[in-house]
Amino acid sequence: MKTIRAAVVGYGNIGRYTVEALQAADDFEIAGIVRRTVSDIPSELKGYKVVTSLKELENVDVAILATPTRKVEGYALEALSLGINTVDSFDIHTKIPQLRATLSDAAAKAGKASVISAGWDPGSDSMVRAILEACAPKGLTYTNFGPGMSMGHSVAVKAIEGVKDALSMTIPTGQGVHRRMVYVEVMEGYDFEKIAAAVKADPYFASDETHVFQVASVDALKDMGHGVNLVRKGVSGKTQNQNFQFKMSINNPALTGQILVAAARAVMRQKPGCYTLIEIPPVDLLPGERDFWVSHIV
Amino acid sequence: MKTIRAAVVGYGNIGRYTVEALQAADDFEIAGIVRRTVSDIPSELKGYKVVTSLKELENVDVAILATPTRKVEGYALEALSLGINTVDSFDIHTKIPQLRATLSDAAAKAGKASVISAGWDPGSDSMVRAILEACAPKGLTYTNFGPGMSMGHSVAVKAIEGVKDALSMTIPTGQGVHRRMVYVEVMEGYDFEKIAAAVKADPYFASDETHVFQVASVDALKDMGHGVNLVRKGVSGKTQNQNFQFKMSINNPALTGQILVAAARAVMRQKPGCYTLIEIPPVDLLPGERDFWVSHIV
Repeated sequence: MKTIRAAVVGYGNIGRYTVEALQAADDFEIAGIVRRTVSDIPSELKGYKVVTSLKELENVDVAILATPTRKVEGYALEALSLGINTVDSFDIHTKIPQLRATLSDAAAKAGKASVISAGWDPGSDSMVRAILEACAPKGLTYTNFGPGMSMGHSVAVKAIEGVKDALSMTIPTGQGVHRRMVYVEVMEGYDFEKIAAAVKADPYFASDETHVFQVASVDALKDMGHGVNLVRKGVSGKTQNQNFQFKMSINNPALTGQILVAAARAVMRQKPGCYTLIEIPPVDLLPGERDFWVSHIV
Repeated sequence: MKTIRAAVVGYGNIGRYTVEALQAADDFEIAGIVRRTVSDIPSELKGYKVVTSLKELENVDVAILATPTRKVEGYALEALSLGINTVDSFDIHTKIPQLRATLSDAAAKAGKASVISAGWDPGSDSMVRAILEACAPKGLTYTNFGPGMSMGHSVAVKAIEGVKDALSMTIPTGQGVHRRMVYVEVMEGYDFEKIAAAVKADPYFASDETHVFQVASVDALKDMGHGVNLVRKGVSGKTQNQNFQFKMSINNPALTGQILVAAARAVMRQKPGCYTLIEIPPVDLLPGERDFWVSHIV
């Protein structure tokens, strides 16, 4: 079996776990890692090509975009223009249709494919939500997150001027309602109250109950565990009170990295275009032959 | 939007709930119901064509096979030869690859599609298992069923000579191990002990701990509630102890009927061939346009 040559773009938390997931997958090889700078290469990357542009890597089948979510579109368009498939874990739910439209056009032109928003939410949770809609078309689904650190939300806080380090905890209060507990380390000379106001005004936080605290060390609070409790109660046909629940307790960037790798496998099997995970057959996420999985897990 | 014309083949428990699910779905109309006999038509079917052969119905897009599982192949081959797509909830896990191979050939010849084993297990549970394999490629999945009446197992017992009525309860004992509690109403002149031995020797029961009881009335025990508790603990990339759980508590034939209808929608969207649910994009199970679902549940 030919291995898939994957480049990892970005080497923060998700990039690091993506490299581990690629190392653990027999059907992949790592074409290289793209970073802003090639000085100060971490020891675990010593065996790999580390470059500042995708163009410097050869025969890349797929670029896994482990960048901040707001930089996904730019990197994806660059990769597609180079004839390289892309996957990402773009996580601003309201902007997914727009990203999908933009990358659909670019992918069609390039004759390549993109799988977007392929983390766990959006991502694998979206697939579960779609399945539960099919099982009970009438009813309500609640997606309850946490308790756990939200990487997207933490990055958004870190982008605020005067923030040295930050951590945003998501606390489920039921029925898909969440409290945000934000812990901030403030740079010298900056006003905590101004930072707190900026956090609460950010689109990531504006619609949730948000509490902001100043702490001496954010690092001392960090635990990358996270969870979800996705609940649907609904009607199958004319039969009421059908109850479904999907729960997980996981290392967040490890699961995101793993799903990105599964999506990188799936993207190789799609026709040109742009896809969210609900548009992809689950078996395409798995290595090897369909027949094996039909025999083993159906 | 053009409605999909569905025929329901068989009118036992699953057939009845399939008709209800079709009535509740705006994108379907009922082309007719196929039964062994057209005498004694139930009042709820009075408005529909009830016939003894698919050939008697016009412009059927898809035949939903709500027959005993062992009769699925025959009916599916007949429907495909008439140029009609098929869906079924064939539930003998070990024989799925063989059914898929047979129907793949027939579907390719007919230029039509079949979706097989589209109940909840095999079916929607299989999709969840595939997603969890993608989330944590190393590890163990346990599918724990019940407590609930197994329709397939009950039908198998009813097929034994001398059995007037029967009910097989599935009791989860953990790690995917199940106890079968079988309740039998015996016909006059038959020996309960012989029936009990025949139950235990049946392939449906041979590998499970099985207890058989004689009762005066099986009907008094019947509750079509069922459940599943599907658990996976595994490794994402190199990160251990990732925990996932999918639970449901449902009316069994109502869920099966609903999933058959969702699969009947999906079969219209597939290229000629035969598919299990893990080979179908989850969004294809849902009514209307992809764009709607990408905006609303991804």
